[in-house]
Amino acid sequence: MQTPSNKALVPFVSVDNMMKLIHRIGIDTMLIGLADYIEQDFLRWPSFDKTPRVASHSAEGVIELMPTSDGATYGFKYVNGHPKNTRGGLQTVTAFGLLADVATGYPVLLTEMTILTALRTAAMSALAAKYLAPKNATTMAMIGNGAQSEFQCLAFRAIVGIRTVRLYDIDPAATAKVRRNLAGSGLNVIACASAQEAVTGADIITTCTADKANATILGDNMVGAGAHINAIGGDCPGKTELHADILHRATIFVEYPEQTRIEGEIQQLSPDHPVTELWQVFNGTARGRQNADQVTVFDSVGFAVEDFSALRYVRDHLGETGAFVEIDLLADPDDPRDLFGMLGRAAPAISAA
Amino acid sequence: MQTPSNKALVPFVSVDNMMKLIHRIGIDTMLIGLADYIEQDFLRWPSFDKTPRVASHSAEGVIELMPTSDGATYGFKYVNGHPKNTRGGLQTVTAFGLLADVATGYPVLLTEMTILTALRTAAMSALAAKYLAPKNATTMAMIGNGAQSEFQCLAFRAIVGIRTVRLYDIDPAATAKVRRNLAGSGLNVIACASAQEAVTGADIITTCTADKANATILGDNMVGAGAHINAIGGDCPGKTELHADILHRATIFVEYPEQTRIEGEIQQLSPDHPVTELWQVFNGTARGRQNADQVTVFDSVGFAVEDFSALRYVRDHLGETGAFVEIDLLADPDDPRDLFGMLGRAAPAISAA
Repeated sequence: MQTPSNKALVPFVSVDNMMKLIHRIGIDTMLIGLADYIEQDFLRWPSFDKTPRVASHSAEGVIELMPTSDGATYGFKYVNGHPKNTRGGLQTVTAFGLLADVATGYPVLLTEMTILTALRTAAMSALAAKYLAPKNATTMAMIGNGAQSEFQCLAFRAIVGIRTVRLYDIDPAATAKVRRNLAGSGLNVIACASAQEAVTGADIITTCTADKANATILGDNMVGAGAHINAIGGDCPGKTELHADILHRATIFVEYPEQTRIEGEIQQLSPDHPVTELWQVFNGTARGRQNADQVTVFDSVGFAVEDFSALRYVRDHLGETGAFVEIDLLADPDDPRDLFGMLGRAAPAISAA
Repeated sequence: MQTPSNKALVPFVSVDNMMKLIHRIGIDTMLIGLADYIEQDFLRWPSFDKTPRVASHSAEGVIELMPTSDGATYGFKYVNGHPKNTRGGLQTVTAFGLLADVATGYPVLLTEMTILTALRTAAMSALAAKYLAPKNATTMAMIGNGAQSEFQCLAFRAIVGIRTVRLYDIDPAATAKVRRNLAGSGLNVIACASAQEAVTGADIITTCTADKANATILGDNMVGAGAHINAIGGDCPGKTELHADILHRATIFVEYPEQTRIEGEIQQLSPDHPVTELWQVFNGTARGRQNADQVTVFDSVGFAVEDFSALRYVRDHLGETGAFVEIDLLADPDDPRDLFGMLGRAAPAISAA
């Protein structure tokens, strides 16, 4: 046999094919579907092998591996975070991911995850808000108008029912970009001159800024009773967005406390500060929002199970969209013990004199 | 811009291209080159960010991520180990790996590593033996004649000067396969009827069996004074090949003690049993073999730095071999903050009504 068998081939979703997949499914349908897959996986939370991500930090940023497994399927994501990348025309965050069969260890999907992470992060935020935001929330402040913001706005529209978004970024060009991209989305889009102006009248406040620093994007006086804060940008050690006073009067919800205490807003608090795990809110064993005056915070850092859900979603929709190619990633010798003999496929004989 | 820019593209070496690369370079030249790269990297050992691999164990096997970084370049390998895979016509071990630029987090190489791992493992073994084997060693026993064995035999020929290999496997068909593959290699290949027969007169004993169990491939009485043992197969918790008595009378050399104590032969010993780190032997701060009667053991488990060296080697030889294609792995919006706007490349407008 001279050519790779089907054992050698792994479906690969390139950036171009991910865009095609999104268009073939429809972005609203996909955001809702991703939120469903995440919710399903959070409802079987104890069945996952969970570990804080493996991070390699440098002065410029971080490279992380985020693995998890449900015992039948294994998944991991490679993701970087380099706030200064945009200056060189590069993405702050790029990612790719893989699913594998636990029984054999063989990969079954390799896919770009830069775009997919943006979608799953937005779906996760909106899913959390479904449980935590004030009832009948219609207005969201979106502070930080970078690569993630349109996805957040569309997910909150599709999943939470948000009708108005109030945008603010220190760079007006970023705000203009979001406004332009959301034209025709049906959302009422308002550009604001300050964070203070953006939060005025907002039921939900989403913060998604990129500075790798302990910043105060939201001061305590800016957050009124009853608000839900969706804090996305504080996601690595030394990088936070909320003033600690907000955290002290809020009820805090997290994905995986072991990771969030290192990376999230709560790195500002004592290690035993009480937090509620979202999977327990979803399954009804913990309470979400309890009254209309409560300030709730989803201290989002992104957890491997969400990527696992997103990878499952893509795998399950490959067939119907056809948005993939197969790549020859795995060695497939005719006799599995004869890896060396397989080299003969590329040359008639091994020269080894 | 409708098509991916060069920022989106990552060189990808498929299995087919890895075979072409090996043939274009020559397998001996490549084994020697890999050993050189590994030695260079071990000589700057303190400059690496080291961590035991992140393993996900199941009843059937293990899936591991092995990351490391030298501060300028980051690398990781995905690798599985599933001893029962061969029954289904699959590889026991498959792998792929990635190099990335620490300054930006952007991947710069994605490559198959099933074949590459076989080569780097053999190069590492032979490199260690260059420092540890008895002087003028010419004969090696090769116990376990699976996918790794031909690579071991060729590396020991090219790097250590081995002229005779004495083969044994519980399955005679495996031995016959190695014999067939090494015909014309210039090695004197002898098939043996037992492990005892194979080790007779051998200067070096390589064990490379695949059972996921504490086995005794080598009993204490089988190892004569002065032998060097290259123990490859004991490489995960509960999987060993040597009788503990051998370890008690041998000088033991390891790659990275923190990982080897969990995964290697020395998991059978107390956690403070003395071991010597190979990087210190290479740089002259620790002693290798001290006399002709000493029994030396390289308790090989495979460490991330070796994969890093192998990835560097492939990256440095991509240009001359041309054995790669570029894949569209990274999102490259025209404006880096406008990830959402890039979706327009795949469809004229986002429908989001």
